[in-house]
Amino acid sequence: MARVTRFPDDLVERMPGGDAITLIVLDGVGGLPHPATGLTELESARTPNLDAMAVESSLGMQVPIAPGITPGSGPAHLALFGYDPARYLIGRGVLAALGVGIRLREGDVAARLNLATLDGRGRVTDRRAGRPGNAEGRRLVRRLREGVTAPPGVDLHFQHVMEHRAVMVLRGDGLGAEVSDTDPQRTGVPPRPPGAPDGDAASARTAEAAGRILEQAAEVLAGEPVANGVLARGFAEYRAPPGFARRYGLKAVAVARYPMYRGVARLVGMEAAGIPDSDGEAVELMRAAAGHADFRFFHYKATDSRGEDGDFEGKVGAIEAMDHLLPGLDDGGVVIVTGDHSTPATMAAHSWHAVPLLIRSRRARPTGRRLTENACRRGDLGTIAARHIMSLALAHAGRLAKFGS
Amino acid sequence: MARVTRFPDDLVERMPGGDAITLIVLDGVGGLPHPATGLTELESARTPNLDAMAVESSLGMQVPIAPGITPGSGPAHLALFGYDPARYLIGRGVLAALGVGIRLREGDVAARLNLATLDGRGRVTDRRAGRPGNAEGRRLVRRLREGVTAPPGVDLHFQHVMEHRAVMVLRGDGLGAEVSDTDPQRTGVPPRPPGAPDGDAASARTAEAAGRILEQAAEVLAGEPVANGVLARGFAEYRAPPGFARRYGLKAVAVARYPMYRGVARLVGMEAAGIPDSDGEAVELMRAAAGHADFRFFHYKATDSRGEDGDFEGKVGAIEAMDHLLPGLDDGGVVIVTGDHSTPATMAAHSWHAVPLLIRSRRARPTGRRLTENACRRGDLGTIAARHIMSLALAHAGRLAKFGS
Repeated sequence: MARVTRFPDDLVERMPGGDAITLIVLDGVGGLPHPATGLTELESARTPNLDAMAVESSLGMQVPIAPGITPGSGPAHLALFGYDPARYLIGRGVLAALGVGIRLREGDVAARLNLATLDGRGRVTDRRAGRPGNAEGRRLVRRLREGVTAPPGVDLHFQHVMEHRAVMVLRGDGLGAEVSDTDPQRTGVPPRPPGAPDGDAASARTAEAAGRILEQAAEVLAGEPVANGVLARGFAEYRAPPGFARRYGLKAVAVARYPMYRGVARLVGMEAAGIPDSDGEAVELMRAAAGHADFRFFHYKATDSRGEDGDFEGKVGAIEAMDHLLPGLDDGGVVIVTGDHSTPATMAAHSWHAVPLLIRSRRARPTGRRLTENACRRGDLGTIAARHIMSLALAHAGRLAKFGS
Repeated sequence: MARVTRFPDDLVERMPGGDAITLIVLDGVGGLPHPATGLTELESARTPNLDAMAVESSLGMQVPIAPGITPGSGPAHLALFGYDPARYLIGRGVLAALGVGIRLREGDVAARLNLATLDGRGRVTDRRAGRPGNAEGRRLVRRLREGVTAPPGVDLHFQHVMEHRAVMVLRGDGLGAEVSDTDPQRTGVPPRPPGAPDGDAASARTAEAAGRILEQAAEVLAGEPVANGVLARGFAEYRAPPGFARRYGLKAVAVARYPMYRGVARLVGMEAAGIPDSDGEAVELMRAAAGHADFRFFHYKATDSRGEDGDFEGKVGAIEAMDHLLPGLDDGGVVIVTGDHSTPATMAAHSWHAVPLLIRSRRARPTGRRLTENACRRGDLGTIAARHIMSLALAHAGRLAKFGS
């Protein structure tokens, strides 16, 4: 038995070797019954491949954060990756920066920027500047990069994300991230100056530096016809949690079409395998990763998008489309299928409801025939916290030693 | 209402009086389905007495330590006894010493010893010295006792356990137990010197003392034809958790045929009622204990042994044999039947899978007809942590007061 590190909660050692693990996250897959049929989205979908997997799996329900807590995508994924989301609070700015591939250092402060439209008296008229295309967005961010000078002692970096979205990273000694948003979250009022109302001295210095930077940015863009302003929000400091390699002894690869999910994967030390343009390409990247990674994370977004649209049938269709992809993702090792949270189409929003969970392995204790809320509620795993899924996955993969003698 | 102590987590007071509690542990009883029948060991067994008890019981599933964590017997039993197994980490040496009845004091350091065979160049050729009989084992340990002198400031005690197994206890001021095993866990290499690689100064001193003791032991046994060496492992310091009498107000008796289980029972202040040679004798000891103890722990080993052998039918038979003993153990009070963990015959090893749990009392909320994984999964108790079983048992016995007014 190789002593590597102890996991979790310092209880057990890991075993060398073991099966590979594939984690398939159907974003927002948990649902509520349709008023007309009494069936949830998962119950309404035709999913022959998931059904075949379910009969060989341990089933259960998982609570992303805690009862009644509706998670954002960042903490929900951290929990799926086995980290206590209440301990590792990761701000939006950091996730955005990691998502576009910026290599953050401990202590860096990042914020999300929106290119915005202001009127002649400096009031916000469009928080997204008419959603510029990517080429236009990149041009505007290039202007910021060329025209804005960092305050003394601060290294500054702007990077375009997508459409009107960009990210700003401040690097320097003694920065803090208790900095308030400049985005007023509505139109008809001017951007707010960044402040540190409850913050420490480091955050106050950072707010002052950010204020100087954003003033210059406004000056640089003032003559633009549409995107003549910048709004900042989600100031966050980068503190890396222990990565997958050290914590679990796993070489981990992430395949996600959206930057944010690549960001949260990079945060825990996963390698992001390319930027897939289609689900088919994403599956190909997963198959390629199987050769050199023993943990593969696959993120599927459409279930959440249709749920947020309030499009019940669309979400059912997204589940069925995912079912077609499933055989291409199954390499015979341990497979986990779950969501990061529920996004019931009847609510058109993320929710706190528990999420169906399936762990397929040769060490499973099968109890049901489908990955649905009703079948999983009766499953062998019971209702568990999402952050315990990784220990179960490692156990099912034969990767954990015994606790005590 | 008598204020005695508060339990659990300082929430409620205990009530005077109440029913007696019998805890029957079928070691490793949880299982996985047989590939040919789809039935687990419990589902395959004919258990008329357990079935009759189940219809009068609250049923549930219990997780020994945490999701995905496979327990050894020590922490699994501590959890059944209501102690957080992550807080009370009890090493193998301490359990072995308590198992053979050594009265440890706080701060004592104990280690398990194996009598072993070394070749002419000091390399281990048999880690168990051909499994000597008990008389031979006792003779060899007597030689150690007579021939080895403790280093200054240390009281030393050797005791035989069973066959090739012995235990060594060091007593003195400022001892530590972060001492590495000398047992190399394989043949063809010499024993390792004891060290304290990550340890404190106290452990380093203890490692040095242990090294001098083991060198003398090797000298004493050098001329023996077979058992000419000693291997040490599982160095552990004794820190007593609060006992059953203080924590629960219970006078507790343990009946177990194997020393280790008597050891973990003594650790929490139970009296070990003799050393039964057969299951029939064990049942007689339980019946005798009923007169003077209000908590009776009965340990049944065969289920685990057959599970570890990978002998599905043998484990089924062990369950059926236990079922015959059950009426002799039931005195009409609260009866708990469960396992310390699962040992699926299909895995031939301990596992992390949840364990069926039955609490029979006149305050039960019955839901099913059998003590099986499937019936208990649907039971009233849900899926709980093993360390909550004791509060449920005390409640069912009418021994806990109300929390708040």
